[in-house]
Amino acid sequence: MGMKVEQVLHMVGGAGETSYATNSRLQEKTIYRTKPILDNAIEEMYRTLLPERLVVADLGCSSGPNTFLVISEVLGVVGELRRRLEQKPPEIQFFLNDLPGNDFNNVFRSLERYGKTIEEEKGELLVPYYVVGVPGSFYGRLFPCRSVHLFHSSYCLMWLSQVPQGLESDHGVPLNKGNIYITETSPPQVVEAYQEQYRRDFSSFLKSRYAELSVGGGMVLTFLGRKKHPANGDLSLLWGLLAEALNSMASEGVIAEDKVDSFNLPFYGPSMQEVKSVIHDEGLFDLDQAQILESNWDPFDDSEDDLAYDNVANGKNVARYIRAVIEPLIAHQFGDAILDELFLRYADNVSKHCLKVKTKFTILVIGLKRKA
Amino acid sequence: MGMKVEQVLHMVGGAGETSYATNSRLQEKTIYRTKPILDNAIEEMYRTLLPERLVVADLGCSSGPNTFLVISEVLGVVGELRRRLEQKPPEIQFFLNDLPGNDFNNVFRSLERYGKTIEEEKGELLVPYYVVGVPGSFYGRLFPCRSVHLFHSSYCLMWLSQVPQGLESDHGVPLNKGNIYITETSPPQVVEAYQEQYRRDFSSFLKSRYAELSVGGGMVLTFLGRKKHPANGDLSLLWGLLAEALNSMASEGVIAEDKVDSFNLPFYGPSMQEVKSVIHDEGLFDLDQAQILESNWDPFDDSEDDLAYDNVANGKNVARYIRAVIEPLIAHQFGDAILDELFLRYADNVSKHCLKVKTKFTILVIGLKRKA
Repeated sequence: MGMKVEQVLHMVGGAGETSYATNSRLQEKTIYRTKPILDNAIEEMYRTLLPERLVVADLGCSSGPNTFLVISEVLGVVGELRRRLEQKPPEIQFFLNDLPGNDFNNVFRSLERYGKTIEEEKGELLVPYYVVGVPGSFYGRLFPCRSVHLFHSSYCLMWLSQVPQGLESDHGVPLNKGNIYITETSPPQVVEAYQEQYRRDFSSFLKSRYAELSVGGGMVLTFLGRKKHPANGDLSLLWGLLAEALNSMASEGVIAEDKVDSFNLPFYGPSMQEVKSVIHDEGLFDLDQAQILESNWDPFDDSEDDLAYDNVANGKNVARYIRAVIEPLIAHQFGDAILDELFLRYADNVSKHCLKVKTKFTILVIGLKRKA
Repeated sequence: MGMKVEQVLHMVGGAGETSYATNSRLQEKTIYRTKPILDNAIEEMYRTLLPERLVVADLGCSSGPNTFLVISEVLGVVGELRRRLEQKPPEIQFFLNDLPGNDFNNVFRSLERYGKTIEEEKGELLVPYYVVGVPGSFYGRLFPCRSVHLFHSSYCLMWLSQVPQGLESDHGVPLNKGNIYITETSPPQVVEAYQEQYRRDFSSFLKSRYAELSVGGGMVLTFLGRKKHPANGDLSLLWGLLAEALNSMASEGVIAEDKVDSFNLPFYGPSMQEVKSVIHDEGLFDLDQAQILESNWDPFDDSEDDLAYDNVANGKNVARYIRAVIEPLIAHQFGDAILDELFLRYADNVSKHCLKVKTKFTILVIGLKRKA
């Protein structure tokens, strides 16, 4: 495919209208919902180790307010705990990781403003903390051995390290024609190629983190997954509607059909069963927590029923944050020029779908403890 | 002055013609010349501590090839040493620090290319290493206590944390009219204000680094200084020629005179005597090395005599790297529009000066060891 995911994949930078920073409410809501699990992991680790210096790494920090949400949560829990346990304040070092294409400049320039807010918020409970940035793929090593106490990652592990190999026949014919992810029309080889890439990536992830974690350390991981067969879930639908928009532009001659046929997302939403199976096979971590959450596609729709209150708004909102997430991948394959038109069509497709059925995201949350 | 140095001061980002990355040969040459001191510091520290994990921080890393030069040097020395001492390869964690306005994105995106070069260069002597970025001022704390083994800083410590206070009379009248740094026409209060700010800043620097260094750790610091009275050195001349260019534009009405009168650089070139005096007063470090080097103003002039071979080229070359260094400060005070014109005039002033006398920079290099 000629695409190096490490170089191309990143959320839209800066703080403008189409940036990830202004389009990450979906991710924000989930961080709030997973707080109890994160809090629990911090507390257990802190009580066990009572470290003078605590190292916390956020993998896939992106660039936006959510990055600071996690820092704030850790500072809150540790500040309160050390007071209750009458411990000397530890120092916390936060490592914010993302791929090298991430807008770290934007993160770093927001830190001072953030620091002031947090000082006011935490007052004398604030423990000293330091923030640094770590560029690189979390499918490889990022830290020295046993140098991290807690890993956190939210909405990242469904991104694969690469587009799976094997999505073409031996003669170079695309097998997943007209699709950009697994759908009902994808042949079994495509499903297998995705599953195989997922297993390999998640397994590398676990091995790297095991090497990097201190004894007594742990991880809290949140990512998109699915409940059913890979071809029938919400993610197949979500990306199917985007493929539909691409196909309509191809049929009108706006983009080349073979560009659509050869485009596949480096993305995979696993089932909890698949996740557990990789963890079990690696044998490096104990599964401490495993929860499945649901979330509306539209990040601004906080309702819990199955009614579409404003399907046009739903379509626009979904298109906006999906664009913030995959614009660089799309632009790399099809050029910048089609972006506005493509996401208009996508918004339209999503809003029509929302009228029929309120499909929801499946979010997997797991808490892992390093085996000694 | 309304200027927050931490937010405004940074080298010109990116990799374009006017960027710091393409205009840092002066700094590069000095890194090569100070290698023996750096090598010696690494060797002593490594032999003393034989750490499994080695933490090295480069303070004021900027964005460009020099950043990687230091990493390469450390990897080389440690790789060779551990082989000779028959030690297991340690892991090295590099912390690259600069102010939040630095173009970290550019640094991070160059890392992969750099990694390949270094793998070829070092071959099997390469020890595992990890690189992270640390945004913030080195005049305050940047790292947890006792978490760093070696600090390196090149061409940074002459930048102050702020423009000195006291450069105005009690009635708000600028005392350093027509100047942007200390010159012969600066009144004694101006000289004192600069010296006082320098003492305060360097003292904060030493206190912060002392807290952050492991027992057995050390520092190698290189920065511009002077040999004579602050009003008579090369730096007074260097900035004096820039002030001249600003004044000529003010006299033609291109910029407002009061903008020049109220503009002073957050910069100070200390004498070795002043440096030693602060180190002695703080009492936290032993001065292991103290050298004074000289360097031509023109980074591309490698001659060692006192002849100007091409004074027009000299002027242009100096203007180019001075612009890469202070463009953001100038633009903050006078706007972007004057930059091209200002640095043309500056190049002209420098080339005229070079005809008269080949003034040289005074570079101070010190090696410090943390007292236990």
